[in-house]
Amino acid sequence: MDDRDAEPSPEALKLVPRFQGQGYGDGHVASRRAWLSELTGVPLDAIGRSAIPAEEMRGNVENPIGTVQMPLGVAGPLWIRGQAACGVFYVPLATTEGALVRSYERGMVAISRSGGAVTRTHADENQISPTFEFADLARAEEFRNFVEANRENIRSEAESTTRHGKLVGLDVRVTGRLAQLTFRFSTGDAHGMNMISKAADRACQWIMQAGAARRYEIFSGLSSEKRPSAAAMRGTKGKNVSAEAMIPAQRVRQFFRCDPSDFVRLWRNTVVGNLGAGALGYCAQYANGITALFIACGQDVANVANAAVGTTIFDTTEDGGLYASVTLPSLTVATVGGGVDLGTSRECLAMLGCRGAGKARKLGEIAAATVLAGELSMAAAIAAGELVKAHNQYGRNRPKPDPQDAASP
Amino acid sequence: MDDRDAEPSPEALKLVPRFQGQGYGDGHVASRRAWLSELTGVPLDAIGRSAIPAEEMRGNVENPIGTVQMPLGVAGPLWIRGQAACGVFYVPLATTEGALVRSYERGMVAISRSGGAVTRTHADENQISPTFEFADLARAEEFRNFVEANRENIRSEAESTTRHGKLVGLDVRVTGRLAQLTFRFSTGDAHGMNMISKAADRACQWIMQAGAARRYEIFSGLSSEKRPSAAAMRGTKGKNVSAEAMIPAQRVRQFFRCDPSDFVRLWRNTVVGNLGAGALGYCAQYANGITALFIACGQDVANVANAAVGTTIFDTTEDGGLYASVTLPSLTVATVGGGVDLGTSRECLAMLGCRGAGKARKLGEIAAATVLAGELSMAAAIAAGELVKAHNQYGRNRPKPDPQDAASP
Amino acid sequence: MDDRDAEPSPEALKLVPRFQGQGYGDGHVASRRAWLSELTGVPLDAIGRSAIPAEEMRGNVENPIGTVQMPLGVAGPLWIRGQAACGVFYVPLATTEGALVRSYERGMVAISRSGGAVTRTHADENQISPTFEFADLARAEEFRNFVEANRENIRSEAESTTRHGKLVGLDVRVTGRLAQLTFRFSTGDAHGMNMISKAADRACQWIMQAGAARRYEIFSGLSSEKRPSAAAMRGTKGKNVSAEAMIPAQRVRQFFRCDPSDFVRLWRNTVVGNLGAGALGYCAQYANGITALFIACGQDVANVANAAVGTTIFDTTEDGGLYASVTLPSLTVATVGGGVDLGTSRECLAMLGCRGAGKARKLGEIAAATVLAGELSMAAAIAAGELVKAHNQYGRNRPKPDPQDAASP
Amino acid sequence: MDDRDAEPSPEALKLVPRFQGQGYGDGHVASRRAWLSELTGVPLDAIGRSAIPAEEMRGNVENPIGTVQMPLGVAGPLWIRGQAACGVFYVPLATTEGALVRSYERGMVAISRSGGAVTRTHADENQISPTFEFADLARAEEFRNFVEANRENIRSEAESTTRHGKLVGLDVRVTGRLAQLTFRFSTGDAHGMNMISKAADRACQWIMQAGAARRYEIFSGLSSEKRPSAAAMRGTKGKNVSAEAMIPAQRVRQFFRCDPSDFVRLWRNTVVGNLGAGALGYCAQYANGITALFIACGQDVANVANAAVGTTIFDTTEDGGLYASVTLPSLTVATVGGGVDLGTSRECLAMLGCRGAGKARKLGEIAAATVLAGELSMAAAIAAGELVKAHNQYGRNRPKPDPQDAASP
Repeated sequence: MDDRDAEPSPEALKLVPRFQGQGYGDGHVASRRAWLSELTGVPLDAIGRSAIPAEEMRGNVENPIGTVQMPLGVAGPLWIRGQAACGVFYVPLATTEGALVRSYERGMVAISRSGGAVTRTHADENQISPTFEFADLARAEEFRNFVEANRENIRSEAESTTRHGKLVGLDVRVTGRLAQLTFRFSTGDAHGMNMISKAADRACQWIMQAGAARRYEIFSGLSSEKRPSAAAMRGTKGKNVSAEAMIPAQRVRQFFRCDPSDFVRLWRNTVVGNLGAGALGYCAQYANGITALFIACGQDVANVANAAVGTTIFDTTEDGGLYASVTLPSLTVATVGGGVDLGTSRECLAMLGCRGAGKARKLGEIAAATVLAGELSMAAAIAAGELVKAHNQYGRNRPKPDPQDAASP
Repeated sequence: MDDRDAEPSPEALKLVPRFQGQGYGDGHVASRRAWLSELTGVPLDAIGRSAIPAEEMRGNVENPIGTVQMPLGVAGPLWIRGQAACGVFYVPLATTEGALVRSYERGMVAISRSGGAVTRTHADENQISPTFEFADLARAEEFRNFVEANRENIRSEAESTTRHGKLVGLDVRVTGRLAQLTFRFSTGDAHGMNMISKAADRACQWIMQAGAARRYEIFSGLSSEKRPSAAAMRGTKGKNVSAEAMIPAQRVRQFFRCDPSDFVRLWRNTVVGNLGAGALGYCAQYANGITALFIACGQDVANVANAAVGTTIFDTTEDGGLYASVTLPSLTVATVGGGVDLGTSRECLAMLGCRGAGKARKLGEIAAATVLAGELSMAAAIAAGELVKAHNQYGRNRPKPDPQDAASP
Repeated sequence: MDDRDAEPSPEALKLVPRFQGQGYGDGHVASRRAWLSELTGVPLDAIGRSAIPAEEMRGNVENPIGTVQMPLGVAGPLWIRGQAACGVFYVPLATTEGALVRSYERGMVAISRSGGAVTRTHADENQISPTFEFADLARAEEFRNFVEANRENIRSEAESTTRHGKLVGLDVRVTGRLAQLTFRFSTGDAHGMNMISKAADRACQWIMQAGAARRYEIFSGLSSEKRPSAAAMRGTKGKNVSAEAMIPAQRVRQFFRCDPSDFVRLWRNTVVGNLGAGALGYCAQYANGITALFIACGQDVANVANAAVGTTIFDTTEDGGLYASVTLPSLTVATVGGGVDLGTSRECLAMLGCRGAGKARKLGEIAAATVLAGELSMAAAIAAGELVKAHNQYGRNRPKPDPQDAASP
Repeated sequence: MDDRDAEPSPEALKLVPRFQGQGYGDGHVASRRAWLSELTGVPLDAIGRSAIPAEEMRGNVENPIGTVQMPLGVAGPLWIRGQAACGVFYVPLATTEGALVRSYERGMVAISRSGGAVTRTHADENQISPTFEFADLARAEEFRNFVEANRENIRSEAESTTRHGKLVGLDVRVTGRLAQLTFRFSTGDAHGMNMISKAADRACQWIMQAGAARRYEIFSGLSSEKRPSAAAMRGTKGKNVSAEAMIPAQRVRQFFRCDPSDFVRLWRNTVVGNLGAGALGYCAQYANGITALFIACGQDVANVANAAVGTTIFDTTEDGGLYASVTLPSLTVATVGGGVDLGTSRECLAMLGCRGAGKARKLGEIAAATVLAGELSMAAAIAAGELVKAHNQYGRNRPKPDPQDAASP
């Protein structure tokens, strides 16, 4: 398979086998896996030990050959006093990074023993921004009037395709002879990207039929789906959520082996570093917690690109304790649609009381509080000079055995 | 578990059970899972059907309760003519987003039937940037001289902690009385974040003993580990890789149902949208392919935050065909360490001929070529107006049944 | 004055002389200048040859010692077919960069001989975003409701301080326990930063009296006054304006010695470079034209930081010509207030028919069309490989005499 | 001149009159001004009162019609204990923004009465990054080797065009089939953009003759000349300079009517606002001070786009005082070339002891210390709630007379 010079023969460019009904039937997955195993010479036993019936994968993956498995740990207790999330939670985190679960657990215990985390959902919508192309700038600018005059038509066309999506705003932005029309939707408990793509596409076709533009493309990039951007920092996707904790100085020392002032100093110094890097927002490790929770709970993990962006604040309280908050403006979470009903995802969501309709905001607030725990713990590890020690203790790269010795050459 | 007003009793804030030896022994994982199941009232059967022995999870997760499973599809053939990667590959992609595998597969087939993808690795290193704090600006600036004068001492201290990491550069950046010292390492086939953290920490301690600063913190944020930033666009993490394909016009029409000029127009229009969003770099869907490949292959998925950043170019070739390239400056991939040896990850890496030492660059080039396939396919779907149609055909959110009807309340 | 070691004696730290009535009276400026001249040993004759009466400087500068003079050139004709600006203009540009005026002139002539520039004003407002600090997140989020419930009170307080400013929007953004309240104002023909600061401050005091927050600060940074940011790219300041031209291929070759396709190629290649730099938006030289026009016309030149941000597009027209547009989302221009009535500024504005009330949008559209001319000309110089040649021909750094020879040591 | 509908007759598109020798001779400037005055009906008397002889404008402006005048104030004393700048300075600031000079003066006096400002120049170079276009990715990557192998040839070609520019580095960046070659130069006391453009262009021509690429363009955007970008934050242009002051708590209260802790709180709150805006770096008003100093001292004012970017830090000192620093990574200043020898510029530079060769770093450090003064003063005004009051007291928009009343309709 690794021959640099030779052009592969036509038969070397084998297509993945096709089966009737897209190949989710009994035996199709096994056949496909066997084909791949023979082609590559690699036994694919672990991949075959799937807890998800093949037919259930339809709509979530094509050419299925089984499942991947990732270690799942649990961190808690996490006491949340939020709007949608209230109670004590044990959070499932799927990861292969040693020390991660322990780190989040430490933060959660500290929060829970200090009055809990308060959470708030500031906003909840999803956006899509098709591009319309016009003959010239004047017509692009006139499109603004067209949209204004036809707001109700556009809304009814868009909403005709969905029972759950509601159009809550329409904005026009003109750049030369291009106009981006941003559709802002409430999407209920679904992630909603497919929902709003379909809705916007219907509305765009109506607009085209009305002769308003000469061409459109369903994505312009302006809404930054699965892309890190200033738009994600501003909040265009999913939930805009904050979580907050105030931890007495004594608890800070007990759990984090440093003082509130150390957090404040670390915040200042790393803000300077993040500004130097041209980072979007400021955080310690949003991506770690968000990714681990998203994998566990059947979320669209690629949305980490926009969801793991936000602003952490460390400050002191009036009585000398530690103030900490996180704000995630584009936190894309869902409890219906996508992968939320697949085997382990269903169990992880159930564990959090987040299955099904009416639970997406709750999941968002749990995510924010989880992220808060991770910020506290990692900041403490850095401030107290214990980060390397923690990874030595829990990580795979422990002094013995050498991590690379363990690898097959 | 959802009581808004009541403060939880101390016993409600139960710690996750501890076991001897951190709880990776026979039965520990099952006991912990049973405890959680009883506490939450949720059967955790699917989570329990783990293909990874508990003891193998040590170093990758704490408080393990089993594994999560995610559907795994395969996309190919992908013919790559690279430096480290040469041959025909079938790429494992773990995802729950319907249409994703089909989309990447389409791009791969088009590439492979058009001469294959060329790949190049431009750079390969990892960085860590501790902050040193000084009494004043003058001392911070003097630190530059100290580092210059003690370069060999710093190197030998750092390298004393690792057999595989090699220090390839040291840069000092001063902001007021703070100095960030960037250690640039070659990390072989490991991701290397733990490796270089330990190495840098040792060197920092030596610097402190030399009396050069009054404090240091091991992370400053300047190197943007797991954070999206301009630094990630510049390239500070892992491999800086490009992949390229040139597809004759006829093949473009055959596979993508549009013309090369449609790609060029789409590129221009979506560049404008991405600039409006303040996005980092420009791409269609790097995060989708990177995330699916990372989950499949036991990579640190949270690194999607820095890895899924880069620049896609669409252009026409001199003979009227389509030119396409992707460049990912901070592509963090590893074939030793982390989660690469766990059950399904091992199989996925083996499938690509990427197990163990000497294979990380190969994996990076496969990742880049995979991403290229996704860029082509998604751009075509948008340009040809077929994106919504594709999601209707393959996605979970098909017209019937309604996605939210399927959700349990 | 250059003694490194000695602490200056108290008398060495002389204050700038104070005069009655702040020192704008007859002779005050001369006295101050004489004092400075004696102190520094430098004759300040040129500075003293001021065309602006001292008393007229009141409100524009403190401690005045005269004026600085900068060379003023004129570029044109610039034919504009806009909304607010219609006609043929000759644009005053103050600069010391050789070749700049000639470059803009070339673009203007090419535009004017090709049907003129079309301009449109997409939006026109100014913003200020005070920070309110609360005891906790819950109270910060409640502030959203407070603002909603007291919208009219806030408006009437704000508008009570100004006859020209109209509040057109109020947005609340919460980050942890901080809430930024963005006041969006229409400011007529004034820049309006002082106007809206005063108005917002009054409203903030009313909010504080209502007991809604524990502290406020009039600026939060969210509105990016005089700072380059993604917010400036989105448009928060002044006019959001586009200008456009379509130039037949033959004219392109005549004026720019290259083909429309060269502009398109250059656009693509430099977009890639700008993305690599992490630049805000995309342009060739907005800062040059904006700065030269702002200095000439008494604008607040420091606003270049936000105003010189935007998006240039080069494309081909359907008949093979060149399409070009510029969009400046945060173009802060004024025709009343600030420095617009001072001596030369008054004349420059009059030259453009932009003096006084009702003319700010016109000035904005002229600025955009001017910028468009500069984009065309610089892109052509790069694409045709003539940039260095142009600077050799017109710039101060001509081969002879050597620029550094001319400098006094 | 404002006729919306009519296409201007050919004679309405009059070219600006041409004169022999480009029109810097005796009477040429007056003739051109008279022509424009007649054409527009506007007397241009103030513009004609130029202190700069026409012939001296050659190389700085084309089509000259006179000069613009801007009010010049002086702020000081500013005691600097730097490397290149040592002593007490009175800084000329050209502005039309009321309160600006008073604001900087307050900061300067506070600094000077508290031990002075310490300054350091961290780096000093200028960059240019041409794009080379290749047939494909493989050839673009090979270019890296070509540059490595021909480093000395490239250097000697580049340096053959300049006596003062020294090539100090060459970096290759590859994106698909494009390679940007960054030339890093030491440019002595000149700004050097023309110098290094010419030098790089010569080297590029040599590279083309060597057959290494199929095309080049002298600018790629990667070096961000006159554009705000993450590259400017990293430092690619001119001087990278910091200035620092430590002000005892009592002095803080005396000069700024607030406490050191108020600065720290304001820093935190406005950092959050700037992160929300997606701002480059963090500052209060770099653009104000940089612009006013650049206009006064004949600098290239359009460079404000890159120069007014950086990082301000407020902190407390160990004895409870205020720590403040500013860092400007891309501060483009020059004391030879450009506009530095023109009339008032020459006097302003002389006032600072910054005329001619060997003085550019000194000017950079003075600029940084000036900027520091402005940060302190503006932060204090916001923290103490006095910003609006200050503008009411000094600004043009005083309650009486109404600013718009003063404007001619």
